[in-house]
Amino acid sequence: VVVASKAVRMVLAARGRAVVDFGLRRAAGAEAGVLGARAAYIAGAAGTSNVLAGLRFGVPLSGTMAHSFVEAHEDEAAAFAAFARANPEHVVLLLDTYDTLAAARSLGRLSPSRPLRGVRLDSGDLAREAPEVRAILDGAGLARVRIFASGGLDEHAIDELVRRGTPIDGFGVGTELLAPSDAPSLDAVYKLVEYDGRPRHKLSPGKRTLPGRKQVFRQPDRDVIALGDEELAGEPLLAQVMRKGRRLAPPPPLAAVRDRVRDQLARLPPRLGALDPVDAYPVTISAALEGIANAGARGR
Amino acid sequence: VVVASKAVRMVLAARGRAVVDFGLRRAAGAEAGVLGARAAYIAGAAGTSNVLAGLRFGVPLSGTMAHSFVEAHEDEAAAFAAFARANPEHVVLLLDTYDTLAAARSLGRLSPSRPLRGVRLDSGDLAREAPEVRAILDGAGLARVRIFASGGLDEHAIDELVRRGTPIDGFGVGTELLAPSDAPSLDAVYKLVEYDGRPRHKLSPGKRTLPGRKQVFRQPDRDVIALGDEELAGEPLLAQVMRKGRRLAPPPPLAAVRDRVRDQLARLPPRLGALDPVDAYPVTISAALEGIANAGARGR
Repeated sequence: VVVASKAVRMVLAARGRAVVDFGLRRAAGAEAGVLGARAAYIAGAAGTSNVLAGLRFGVPLSGTMAHSFVEAHEDEAAAFAAFARANPEHVVLLLDTYDTLAAARSLGRLSPSRPLRGVRLDSGDLAREAPEVRAILDGAGLARVRIFASGGLDEHAIDELVRRGTPIDGFGVGTELLAPSDAPSLDAVYKLVEYDGRPRHKLSPGKRTLPGRKQVFRQPDRDVIALGDEELAGEPLLAQVMRKGRRLAPPPPLAAVRDRVRDQLARLPPRLGALDPVDAYPVTISAALEGIANAGARGR
Repeated sequence: VVVASKAVRMVLAARGRAVVDFGLRRAAGAEAGVLGARAAYIAGAAGTSNVLAGLRFGVPLSGTMAHSFVEAHEDEAAAFAAFARANPEHVVLLLDTYDTLAAARSLGRLSPSRPLRGVRLDSGDLAREAPEVRAILDGAGLARVRIFASGGLDEHAIDELVRRGTPIDGFGVGTELLAPSDAPSLDAVYKLVEYDGRPRHKLSPGKRTLPGRKQVFRQPDRDVIALGDEELAGEPLLAQVMRKGRRLAPPPPLAAVRDRVRDQLARLPPRLGALDPVDAYPVTISAALEGIANAGARGR
């Protein structure tokens, strides 16, 4: 949920430009990296550099070379040529290992038999260097080559670059996607609300919970949390997926989950899609649930 | 590394009191939880509530009940009795589901056939309630029953409770251990420094790296980073563990790794073991490494 929420914010900030997960190296282990790539894709990311996530979940793969790939070659031109030979369909070259602008100027001399798809800038002042690289590419007849940027980006940095009109076509995000510094954890827990058919709750000061099985109804302007057997207006959001430890139906395809996220986001009022929304999405409690909570369902 | 560093800080702050990993529910997946429990144990934690980490790595298991366990029973007394029946060797009861002090007063009426080892407080004002619970226990002849505390604790909260002399014998830590809010990620990366026997480095502004294979010598007052073939005073810290993709020796037992951490920590000057050290551990670069870095090992 943390990764998906962060990815949604980055995708919204990118306003149609691609956001790609580069987060594996900052994930808390391989599994966290794969699950994070999946969460980011569901949230609207264009793809991932995590090959296992591609194999396991069908998340589109996207990536470029590492600095170490450039350094492992005798010089940068040899590294670029070797990458183009190995990945002829996806030639995206990393420009900032030694000198970004010199690397950009060298691209006009690349063999035209390997069509260059894009370049990546991973350091330096992106707002200053991306336009310079764009101008060099355009001057060399490479107007169709896309510029990707990465390097510690979060949704605020992406928003700033997009608002300034910086010519960047896609963003690679890692650390701030899989280990967000502003929300490193989600303070949410499962609570027991019903046992053996009877509602339960906890009474600790400041940690009081609402007893009983719930349903949530999504209405045009709000979500309403109600008791499980209430029938209110709106779309019920909770559906039973397991019974006696078994799934009731196969999971929906990843693409369907992703489409649902996109459709639900499109229904959000624009003020709630802002990076710093002034107010929260309205969530209210039904009268019946309020009643049972106040009555104190559980005798002590 | 993030989890181990955070655990070391919590263990230092606890000054001999037990620190136990409760972090699984805040980990980025099951694997991250198991690896986090292992890292915390290496760093000096007394154990974990993560049963799989216990089975897989031999980390000592420690834990109490969840609030949902109490709520699932008809009343708290029934829950406590059921827990004592199921875990007769490790009766640690959670007091704060409904009313902490009332729960503490009920303990004197427990069957003496199930020796009570401890109680846990997971909410409320620990500095105020722990002494009250201690007094109730002592008054009921339960002076040997230990008090454990949990609930969003970090090393600063632990330090504060210990400095105030709060009667708490052990701390359960979760969120701040596995998803630390002050250091959610470690900005460290692998860099290629040698390829095919020749030193390599990166020249991006602000991201320049030191070329060549390294050794680090731990001297009494500092670590010195040197070239791989230098012989300086001190203990060399880097040892080759793999060659051609194969381990050269079996991994050391977890207990040996944990002992090494404890011994190395004991050698730290106290001012560097403080939660907010005024200066950093001294790390310098050997003259030879400085020379090769300045010479620019790689012609371009």
